[in-house]
Amino acid sequence: MFTRTLRVTTHREGDVIDLSDRVKKIVTESGISTGLVHLFVQHSTAALTTIEFEPGVIQDLKRALSVLAPDNADYAHNTRWGDGNGRSHVKAALVGPSLTIPIGNGNLLCGTWQQIVLLELDVNAGRERTVICTVTGE
Amino acid sequence: MFTRTLRVTTHREGDVIDLSDRVKKIVTESGISTGLVHLFVQHSTAALTTIEFEPGVIQDLKRALSVLAPDNADYAHNTRWGDGNGRSHVKAALVGPSLTIPIGNGNLLCGTWQQIVLLELDVNAGRERTVICTVTGE
Amino acid sequence: MFTRTLRVTTHREGDVIDLSDRVKKIVTESGISTGLVHLFVQHSTAALTTIEFEPGVIQDLKRALSVLAPDNADYAHNTRWGDGNGRSHVKAALVGPSLTIPIGNGNLLCGTWQQIVLLELDVNAGRERTVICTVTGE
Repeated sequence: MFTRTLRVTTHREGDVIDLSDRVKKIVTESGISTGLVHLFVQHSTAALTTIEFEPGVIQDLKRALSVLAPDNADYAHNTRWGDGNGRSHVKAALVGPSLTIPIGNGNLLCGTWQQIVLLELDVNAGRERTVICTVTGE
Repeated sequence: MFTRTLRVTTHREGDVIDLSDRVKKIVTESGISTGLVHLFVQHSTAALTTIEFEPGVIQDLKRALSVLAPDNADYAHNTRWGDGNGRSHVKAALVGPSLTIPIGNGNLLCGTWQQIVLLELDVNAGRERTVICTVTGE
Repeated sequence: MFTRTLRVTTHREGDVIDLSDRVKKIVTESGISTGLVHLFVQHSTAALTTIEFEPGVIQDLKRALSVLAPDNADYAHNTRWGDGNGRSHVKAALVGPSLTIPIGNGNLLCGTWQQIVLLELDVNAGRERTVICTVTGE
């Protein structure tokens, strides 16, 4: 069991950050050849998934998330707390904080057009996000 | 590998239950200091995710799920089986049954405003839900 | 740690394939009695989840995904690449590629009405999909 922490700096709501290379480096560092790497983002207004890391798809994903949690809806969270990020929490809970990727021959077994991404969903820009990486295997 | 079963009583559709303390207790009981805890809800009309456990956010999440699966849509599942919970199945499949959280120093490595929650999505109220918890590590 | 690869042939967009029996067979073959099986689909236009494998629910799920990513919307991915599967990428990123199921007494600990499914989301039909299965435990 090999654990590392990734720090990810984001700049604005809607940033999508490709973590594939950094995760791959941790897998290499672990020396594990066959196994799993688990990723967990320690925040309630960010999320993890895989996607083809291409500006068009990312724009399309953002539109889909806005169907679920429109910018201009009335959020009970905003009314109660006044921090304006109700939509961010909703999107993050639906995409989810957790992702596990298999490892084979010391490589991430993702598809060719399948990158690991962090979604910055908070309306309050300029955050440092923490992703816990746990590598298990042989 | 340490396994425990959580029984969770729900009362009505839309109940969101904070499992964080119960999961933390299982992690402590396991004696595992560094590792992972995996949670799985054994039902097709309930789901697991993380969220800030705050009534406003929870209300906002429910509205977002209703965009995907409105109360008053025509569900093919309802037409075939007459049990009226088509929307519950749809929401559960999209949020997902499975969640993995890292453990460090014997604690859950969740964010401060990030709680582990079970979503009761079934229209038929008063259920006992089973969550399988599997702790691995050292 | 026991790894196997599932090949899944799909025929058209919207195919939902029940993988439960094939995953169970791999668990049996592994000889692992208590543990976890992790599944990962190596593609950016397919996804994994659990659902009651019943034609009505599946039809309802497809409608919900179309709310997020309608057939006739303008996709930036399509404009850039012309391959017409923008909606497929969006749906796959939201449902997710990764799923972990607990194992007890050598069986999958799914609910009775909870099957493991692959969603074929690509508009370009007739694909072979790869799912990496990793079994861990004792």
